[in-house]
Amino acid sequence: MSKYDIIVLGSGPGGYVTAIRASQLGLKTAVIEKENLGGVCLNWGCIPTKALLKSAQVFEYLKHAEDYGLSVKDADKDFGAVVKRSRGVADGMSNGVKFLMKKNKIDVIEGFGKLKPGKKVDVDGKEYSADHIIVATGARSRELPSLPQDGKKVIGYREAMTLKEQPKKMIVVGSGAIGVEFAYFYNSMGTDVTIVEYLPNVVPVEDEDVSKQLERSFKKSGIKIMTSAEVTKVDTSGSGVKATVKTKKGEEILEADIILSAVGIKSNIENIGLEDVGIAVDRDKILVNDFYQTNIPGYYAIGDVTPGQALAHVASAEGILCVEKIAGQNVEALDYGNIPGCTYASPEIASVGLTEKQAREQGLDIKVGKFPFSASGKASASGAKEGFVKVIFDAKYGEWLGCHMIGAGVTDMIAEAVLGRKLETTGHEVLKTVHPHPTMSEAVMEAVADAYGEVIHL
Amino acid sequence: MSKYDIIVLGSGPGGYVTAIRASQLGLKTAVIEKENLGGVCLNWGCIPTKALLKSAQVFEYLKHAEDYGLSVKDADKDFGAVVKRSRGVADGMSNGVKFLMKKNKIDVIEGFGKLKPGKKVDVDGKEYSADHIIVATGARSRELPSLPQDGKKVIGYREAMTLKEQPKKMIVVGSGAIGVEFAYFYNSMGTDVTIVEYLPNVVPVEDEDVSKQLERSFKKSGIKIMTSAEVTKVDTSGSGVKATVKTKKGEEILEADIILSAVGIKSNIENIGLEDVGIAVDRDKILVNDFYQTNIPGYYAIGDVTPGQALAHVASAEGILCVEKIAGQNVEALDYGNIPGCTYASPEIASVGLTEKQAREQGLDIKVGKFPFSASGKASASGAKEGFVKVIFDAKYGEWLGCHMIGAGVTDMIAEAVLGRKLETTGHEVLKTVHPHPTMSEAVMEAVADAYGEVIHL
Repeated sequence: MSKYDIIVLGSGPGGYVTAIRASQLGLKTAVIEKENLGGVCLNWGCIPTKALLKSAQVFEYLKHAEDYGLSVKDADKDFGAVVKRSRGVADGMSNGVKFLMKKNKIDVIEGFGKLKPGKKVDVDGKEYSADHIIVATGARSRELPSLPQDGKKVIGYREAMTLKEQPKKMIVVGSGAIGVEFAYFYNSMGTDVTIVEYLPNVVPVEDEDVSKQLERSFKKSGIKIMTSAEVTKVDTSGSGVKATVKTKKGEEILEADIILSAVGIKSNIENIGLEDVGIAVDRDKILVNDFYQTNIPGYYAIGDVTPGQALAHVASAEGILCVEKIAGQNVEALDYGNIPGCTYASPEIASVGLTEKQAREQGLDIKVGKFPFSASGKASASGAKEGFVKVIFDAKYGEWLGCHMIGAGVTDMIAEAVLGRKLETTGHEVLKTVHPHPTMSEAVMEAVADAYGEVIHL
Repeated sequence: MSKYDIIVLGSGPGGYVTAIRASQLGLKTAVIEKENLGGVCLNWGCIPTKALLKSAQVFEYLKHAEDYGLSVKDADKDFGAVVKRSRGVADGMSNGVKFLMKKNKIDVIEGFGKLKPGKKVDVDGKEYSADHIIVATGARSRELPSLPQDGKKVIGYREAMTLKEQPKKMIVVGSGAIGVEFAYFYNSMGTDVTIVEYLPNVVPVEDEDVSKQLERSFKKSGIKIMTSAEVTKVDTSGSGVKATVKTKKGEEILEADIILSAVGIKSNIENIGLEDVGIAVDRDKILVNDFYQTNIPGYYAIGDVTPGQALAHVASAEGILCVEKIAGQNVEALDYGNIPGCTYASPEIASVGLTEKQAREQGLDIKVGKFPFSASGKASASGAKEGFVKVIFDAKYGEWLGCHMIGAGVTDMIAEAVLGRKLETTGHEVLKTVHPHPTMSEAVMEAVADAYGEVIHL
């Protein structure tokens, strides 16, 4: 029986990052993977979708070449080639993880791992043991009872990124990041897309102003949006698929080739031996303390199987903290209030901290500032005037409570807000930080200035 | 005679921003402009060049559509339309400044302003007075004795952005931001471009690694580069222009249609009455204290006419500080060591703080970290694997001494480093700031991790 310091169950952005950090800290480490190194994120999530979206973005440039003084004839997409490029990028990244495992002397055990009592893991009949076992098995597409996925006409994100043929009509159920990204991608490729969202706003976790801007932008680009709407029934018996959608106005039947169900995720906690070991769970989440220890000593959990935000960067950060703590480092617990979230459609969305509504609901006295990209010189020069930066500060103490961005490139701009908030900046300090001109990032400075009545370009 | 609290001479990004902030502070303000509201930056610099560069970027996408699974026929540019778009963007921004002047109740006085003793300004024969007069007259293209500009065959940035016809061959003398941006733009449009740089590296103010990367990228895209090279003579007598270039290897004669001289700028301090008032200058710079007061009470200077970096964002920041101090606010002097600089070619360059060489020359014990975009998932998905983020920390105190970026979108990413440095962050704090995945901004976190031996994806 092989003995390790650390065994990580799952090699997604939680698992493989955890394993690398453990190895850096001198711990003998193995990672168990049943399918592809890199997990959903690299193979079926973050990375391949960004490749699809890049093709969509370039296709938009092709279609609007004249706006830039350019011309093309017969701008077209080869749907198969777009998907193939995306798969190539994913495969490249997965190979990259393979290389990193080797370089860091991490054993990769292929197979389905199941926890056993006594700090052991069974992998398809073979047993391994470790001083510390970390569960990082991630999550999958959640299925609604009213919307069972058959993988053909009613699909999840996984099928959505490898369709053999481009659908003519598509219904996207759910408008979180996944739903919105695919809606944008398929619409851009020429598919007729309708979003059905149960809540009153699209991207419902975002600030309401962001939701409204995205709805305007999407409608302008031809995406149909139904909010406060629910798919109650699906009929896949004909050549396409019929969805019964209930709205405030009554019931409506939508026809399409494909329905994409993007109504959230469900943790992969089944059949991995949690019950055998006696690890406590609450619904589909493994309960952990600030350093990702479960109720059973020697067993830990990180990433989507735990209650924090189900995001790749959260899983990585949790895994790093978890093994640093195991290695005896003096670590601080993760601040779940300072986790950025991104959606990579066009316009992009990025945010961190409280929305205006959340801040008001908490009874906070706030200052709100907003700067539209329509007033930004760089945005004008780039033909990217859509969107804005919105900031929320505590009026009394000057704490930066929230930052909400929608527009071109904002997913790379949110880091400033996350770092600023971590360092407990005040608005004044952001305002007196000289942002380069002309950049989109000036909008952050100007939004802060707006909150304090000092905005220049409005 | 009209009397103001503040008169600002020049309406560039120094002048007009100063005027707006002054007006916000309740000061009766006028701005004097001899030509276009917004100055060089809006009309002949930052903004219209970014518009040209955006067309170049989109044209690159058109030419490489196949890389993204797309196809086009006959991708072409209409040089006149590209220039026209750029002029339209500049005009729009200039009109925006006009609107801002009106909204902020700032009097715009058209004409050439000349300082007079007794806190007066003469504008083409009419006199105005103010308690505080701020010189913000900016700068223009510097002329070398060996390279006199005739505006036709030997031109400056101004002519370079409004050429009627696209040159077939162009020599760009100087490889600072202006030279590099035009070299990239014209090469991308199909002009045969040669850069002649006097110093051993292109973009000589940048970290040497950045210079080397840009040189590699530019050469790959077909731009010819001569470093440690000097144009000693120019002959414009024929149909084109012949430049004698002296290198270590000897002399060489290059032929072209156009030579663009981009060898820096010269302050506009002539004929504006500095001598009449007795304002002290050193070479072409007006001497000021930390709050932009000249040696003569009531007279101030900001922007390119003063010794700080000749950058639009510096001018704006100086102007704001200057009038806040006049208004009696408690202000801190600008930290000229924390000013970001950007170059908007492809790849983009952005940097702040010390280069590695500068840090070593200061005898500092440093930790250096570097993360290439080739190892970034987002960069792979975007087809933007060129470049890197490099960071420099003080080994003893953890101070973030410098950050140097080259790659797609980095001009919007440098703000994180500027804010972090302003807030006196340590590397550890940047490392523990959760950057969203997948973004280019993760490269900052990873570069910092590399400096401390904790990089994950290398």
